Amino acid sequence: MKRKIYLNMRSLPEARIIFSEKFSHLKTGVETIASHDSAGRVSANPVTAQLSSPSFHASAMDGLAVRAAQTYGASDDSPITLNIANKQAAFINTGHPLPDQYDAVIMIEHVLLSDDNTTGIIRAPVYPWQNVRKVGEDIVATELLFPSNHHLTPPDVAALLTAGCLEIEVRKKPRITIIPTGTELVDLRETDSIPPGKTIESNSAVLAALAREAGAEVTVTPIIADDYTTIKKHLEQSVQSQADVVVINAGSSAGSADYTAEIISELGEVMVHGVTIMPGKPTILGEIAGKPVIGSPGYPVSAIISFEQFVVPLLRHMQGLEVETPDTATALLARDLPSKGGIEEFRRMITGKIGKHLVTVPLKKGAGAITTLTRANSILRIPAASEGETRRSSVNLELLRPRKQIENTILCTGSHDLCLDIIHDFLKQSSPFPLASTHVGSLGGILAIRDNMTHIAGSHLLDPDTGEYNLSYINRYLQDKDVALITLVHRQQGFMVQADNPKNIHSIQDLIRDDIRFINRQAGSGTRVLLDHELTTSGLDPDEICGYDTDEYTHMAVAVSVLSGKVDAGLGILAAAQALQLDFIPVTEERYDLIIPTEFLELPSIQQLLAIINSDAFKQTVENKGGYSTRETGHRVL
Amino acid sequence: MKRKIYLNMRSLPEARIIFSEKFSHLKTGVETIASHDSAGRVSANPVTAQLSSPSFHASAMDGLAVRAAQTYGASDDSPITLNIANKQAAFINTGHPLPDQYDAVIMIEHVLLSDDNTTGIIRAPVYPWQNVRKVGEDIVATELLFPSNHHLTPPDVAALLTAGCLEIEVRKKPRITIIPTGTELVDLRETDSIPPGKTIESNSAVLAALAREAGAEVTVTPIIADDYTTIKKHLEQSVQSQADVVVINAGSSAGSADYTAEIISELGEVMVHGVTIMPGKPTILGEIAGKPVIGSPGYPVSAIISFEQFVVPLLRHMQGLEVETPDTATALLARDLPSKGGIEEFRRMITGKIGKHLVTVPLKKGAGAITTLTRANSILRIPAASEGETRRSSVNLELLRPRKQIENTILCTGSHDLCLDIIHDFLKQSSPFPLASTHVGSLGGILAIRDNMTHIAGSHLLDPDTGEYNLSYINRYLQDKDVALITLVHRQQGFMVQADNPKNIHSIQDLIRDDIRFINRQAGSGTRVLLDHELTTSGLDPDEICGYDTDEYTHMAVAVSVLSGKVDAGLGILAAAQALQLDFIPVTEERYDLIIPTEFLELPSIQQLLAIINSDAFKQTVENKGGYSTRETGHRVL
Repeated sequence: MKRKIYLNMRSLPEARIIFSEKFSHLKTGVETIASHDSAGRVSANPVTAQLSSPSFHASAMDGLAVRAAQTYGASDDSPITLNIANKQAAFINTGHPLPDQYDAVIMIEHVLLSDDNTTGIIRAPVYPWQNVRKVGEDIVATELLFPSNHHLTPPDVAALLTAGCLEIEVRKKPRITIIPTGTELVDLRETDSIPPGKTIESNSAVLAALAREAGAEVTVTPIIADDYTTIKKHLEQSVQSQADVVVINAGSSAGSADYTAEIISELGEVMVHGVTIMPGKPTILGEIAGKPVIGSPGYPVSAIISFEQFVVPLLRHMQGLEVETPDTATALLARDLPSKGGIEEFRRMITGKIGKHLVTVPLKKGAGAITTLTRANSILRIPAASEGETRRSSVNLELLRPRKQIENTILCTGSHDLCLDIIHDFLKQSSPFPLASTHVGSLGGILAIRDNMTHIAGSHLLDPDTGEYNLSYINRYLQDKDVALITLVHRQQGFMVQADNPKNIHSIQDLIRDDIRFINRQAGSGTRVLLDHELTTSGLDPDEICGYDTDEYTHMAVAVSVLSGKVDAGLGILAAAQALQLDFIPVTEERYDLIIPTEFLELPSIQQLLAIINSDAFKQTVENKGGYSTRETGHRVL
Repeated sequence: MKRKIYLNMRSLPEARIIFSEKFSHLKTGVETIASHDSAGRVSANPVTAQLSSPSFHASAMDGLAVRAAQTYGASDDSPITLNIANKQAAFINTGHPLPDQYDAVIMIEHVLLSDDNTTGIIRAPVYPWQNVRKVGEDIVATELLFPSNHHLTPPDVAALLTAGCLEIEVRKKPRITIIPTGTELVDLRETDSIPPGKTIESNSAVLAALAREAGAEVTVTPIIADDYTTIKKHLEQSVQSQADVVVINAGSSAGSADYTAEIISELGEVMVHGVTIMPGKPTILGEIAGKPVIGSPGYPVSAIISFEQFVVPLLRHMQGLEVETPDTATALLARDLPSKGGIEEFRRMITGKIGKHLVTVPLKKGAGAITTLTRANSILRIPAASEGETRRSSVNLELLRPRKQIENTILCTGSHDLCLDIIHDFLKQSSPFPLASTHVGSLGGILAIRDNMTHIAGSHLLDPDTGEYNLSYINRYLQDKDVALITLVHRQQGFMVQADNPKNIHSIQDLIRDDIRFINRQAGSGTRVLLDHELTTSGLDPDEICGYDTDEYTHMAVAVSVLSGKVDAGLGILAAAQALQLDFIPVTEERYDLIIPTEFLELPSIQQLLAIINSDAFKQTVENKGGYSTRETGHRVL
C-alpha cells in the first residue's frame, strides 16, 4: 500500500480565501424570466420602474369624490349638502380613478345620504387631495426598484408587476454535477438487497439537496468504481459538459484508492488538499479548464460540512447572493468537551433552554455518524488553537434550527428508553415542543438534574436495600432540589443472546460458565445496578464473570456486541434484542421513572409531555411494543 | 351607494384563534415519495430504520486490519513486525468490511511498510475494535429515525437512505386556489398597454409566491369582474374543485362592489369579517363545504399581511409544520410614531446598526404602497391599545431579513438624490452592505446625524451669506460632533414644467405671474433654501408667488404635482423631470454632499461606500444620467 499524503493542507479560513479568490470572477449568465415567477431569484441588473403607481389619481377610500373647496366650513353646527345628482359630488370606489373635476374623497361613512342617493350631507371638510392616492405616490417611472444582486421576495413580485415590469433579468441557476465514486457503494434504487460488504450510497442525494437549497440545478451521475482511468474519464466528461461546478465524492483522502487529488492535478490544478477541520478534513479544492472541481470527503458528516463550507458559498456567489451566516447564540456547556489541537472541530450539539439560559449537550463525534447531524439543532465550532471547552463554560453556537424551536426543545438525559421516542413522536404531532434526549445512564441524568443541565432525566436505579427505585438516589444527590418522580413504565430486563441461543443461556447462573463471554453496562447505569442486585440475590461473584469489567453505554451497543459475536450475552431490554433479532431471556422487571424538577412542571412543554404520558393512546402504543407494562404509567411517586 | 359594515370584526389574536380552531383537524393526505426527493417535505408518520448502519463492522481508517492482541506491547523500544504475506495483518480501506479474523485497524500512517509490502512494523498497540465502526454504531434497525411532522433536511435524506428507507410517507402539499377579482384590474400578461383607469393585477402573483414558499401547490384563476353572480359561480366552482383552500382577492371591504362576505355567507359561513389590524383590516375568514375560504384585502400590503397572518399558518398546519415565528430584535426608534388606537398597526421599518444599537426608521404608512414592504427590512407592530411610540424609545421589531444583513445595513437619511440609488447598486454588486435611505430633507438629515440615528446624511444646504454649502449648518447643529463632509456631486436644479412648457416659463421672474401656480419644497430642505436664495438675488418677494406656502417632501412629489396639472412649476432636479417626461428649465447648479461622523469612517461598510464614490465606474454612471457633474466627487471638504 502506497502511503499518500495531503498535498496542500490549509486551515479553513486560508482554504476559503484561496477558493473564493480563485473564483471571485465566476458568475452565472443572465436570463430573462417572467416577473410572475421571479420570487427566490436574483436580479442580474438594476431594475427600474417602467410605469408609475398609481398611474392615475386614485381614490384611496370608498366614498364621494368632491372638490375640497366646496367642503370648507362643514361642521356639526353647519352641515353642507352636496348635490350628487348634478355632479357636485360623485360616488367612487377604492382604487378607481378620480374624475378630473374633483380633487378629494370623503369617506362614505362620513356622508349622510338621502334615500334616493341624490344628495349627501357632510359635517366635516376635506383638504385637497385627501383620501386620494396621487400619480406616482408609491412608484415613479424610471426610479430604481431593485439593485443588482437583489434576492427577490414575494412582495418584490408585486412591486415588479405594479411598476409594469413584466419580465426581469435574473442570474441563471448554477449547474452542478455530482459524481459519486466508490467500488463499495450501491445505489439503493437499483438493488433489492445490499450485497455483503457493500454500503448504501447516500452522499450524492444529500449534496444534491444542499445544492438545490442553494439554488442550483443538479446532475448526479451513476456511481463510478474506484478505478483511476474510469474516474479520470468521467471527470473529464463532466468538466466538458454544461456543468459550472463539479463535485467528486469521495476518494479525496489519502488511501490506496484515493485518486481524486492526483487526477485533478493531472487535468488541472489542486489548490488545496486537506483542510484542518473535523469532520471534513479530506477536502480537495481544485480547478479544471477554469471550472471549480471539488473533491468531497466520503464520510457523510464530513461530506456535508465540507460542502457547506466551500460549495454552497460558491453556488451562492455565482448567483450574486451573499454567503449566509448562521444565527448564533450563547449557551452553557453541559459537559467537558476535549478537542484535538491543530484542527477546527465542528461538534454537533443538542441545545435547549433551562430557566433563563440555553444549555448545550454534545453528541458523539464520528464523521460517519449521520444521525449526529440529523439530531443536532446546533453546532459548536472549537477553534484549531483550542484544546476544548470545559463544563459550565459559556460557548458560542451556530444554530441549525430556528431559535424559537431550540428554545422550545425539552432536554432529556439519563437512561434511555424507547418510550422516550414515542413521547417525542406524540409531542411532534400535537405541539411545538421537540424532545431531545442524550444518554448518560441513570446516575448521569440525576447529576444533570442537580446541575440544571436538563429538564428531565430518565432513571431506573434500584436501591438493593429497599427494593425501591430512584428514591434513595434522589435523596442522596438531589437534597437541595425539589423534584417530581413520575413513573413512565415497567419493563422487562433480560439477557440478550444470539439468535436461537446457541450457548444455551437460561439463567443468571450461566454467566459464570467458562465458555460465556459477557458484556456489562457502564458504572452508574440502572442496568448495572440491577445486574449487581441479581448477582447478590443469586450469591454470585462478579469476578467469576468473564467480561464483567468491559462495558458499553447503551442497550443497543450491548445488543450489537452480542450480534457481532464479540460476546455471548448482555443484560438489556426486549426492544434492543428485537431490533437486532436476538433472543431474549427475561430476568426481571424494573421500573423506569422520569425525574422532573417541580419548577418545570408548569412549563407548557412539560404540561404537554405529562398529558401525553397520561393518555390512553400513548399507553396503548407502549403496550404494543412488547416488554412493557403501563399499569403505573403517569403515577407520581414523589 | 349602500353603506355596508364589517359583519363580525375581531382583533388579530381572536381572529387567529377562531380560524385555527375551526380548521385544527384539517391535514393534507399522505403520499409516498422517494427519499431522494424528500428534503423540504414533512413526515406523515414516525419513520423507523429498516437497516443498521454500518451494516457490518467497517474499517474507520485506511490501514492494516489486525488482531489487537497481537499488537500488545509494541512501543518505540520494542516494535512489532506484522507479517502481511501470511495474513497476520491485511490492508484495508476506509469503509470496507473488517474480515472475520481481525478485530482492530492500525492507521496506515502508523505502519512502517517493507518495500514489497509484505511486512509492516508498528510501534504502538491498538485495543480491540479500535478504528472499527461496529454494526449499528450510527443507526440500529427498528430505531426511530424521525417522528411524525418532521420537516426533512438534506442530512435527513442521508439518514433515510443509510437506514435503508428508500421511500417515505409525507404529507401532500396543500392545494390553494387564488381568485383575483376586480373590474378595474388587468393582467399585464394579456395586454400591451394599460387602458386608462385600469390597475395592474399583482396580488395573485405575490400571494401565489407566498403560498409556494409555504409549501403549497397553487392555482390562480383568471381575473373575475366585480359581479355578484359571476363571483359566486367562480367561488362555488373553486370550492368544488381539488382545492383544499380558496382565497378570493379582493371585494372583502365594505364598498358598493364588495360582495365577498355576502357570497361566502350565502354558500357557507363567515366566521370573521374585518380584523382590527392595519394594513389588513378587510379580511374575511370563512368556510364553505368544510373548506377554508379567505377573502383577502385589495391593497397589496394589506393582502400580504393578511395572507401571512392567516393563510400561511393554515397551509403550514395542514402539512404538520409549526407556525414560523419571526426573529425579533430591539431597536431605538428614530422618530415619533403616532398610531390610531383600537387597531394593531404593522408598520414597515428600515433598521440598521449605529454603534452598539439597532436604530429603526419608519417608512410611510399607505396600504397601497408596496414599496414600503419591499424596502423594509423589519416590521414594528404597534398594539391596538397603544397610541404610538415616541422617538428614542426602545421598540421590539420582527425581522424580515437575516439579522446579519440588517446589522450590515448602511442607514442614510436627509435629502435624497438619485446617486444614492447608484451607490446602493454598486454596493450590492461588491459587498454585503445594503444602503437604505429615507428622506427627510437636508436639515432633517443633519439632525439625525446629531442624534446618532443615521450613518450618513445627504445635504445640499446653501448658506446665502457665504455661498458655501453645508458647512455653516454643520457648525451650527453639529458643534459636538466630529464629522466628515464629502462631496458627492454637483447637480442642476431647475423648474419642472409640463411637457412642451405650455405656460412659457423661462426664468425665476415668471413665478410671480398671476397665471402661474407653484409648488414649494418643505422648510429645511436644501431646494427651498436654494429657491429663497435665488428669489433674494433676483429681488423677488415670496408672497407674490401663488403656491409658495404649499409644499411637498420630495423632488418626485413635486414632479407629480406638475404632471397632474395641479401646479404649473416646481423647483427640482433634472432626473425627477425626466422620470415623468416633464420639461426642465435649468436655474442653477448646486453641490450635494454626504455628512459622515468621523467615527464611522473606518467601518468596512463606509470604507466600501467611499471606495465606490471614488471609482471611475461610479462617476461615469453618474455623468451618464445627465444633470450631474462629478468634478469634485469624493473630495473631502471637512
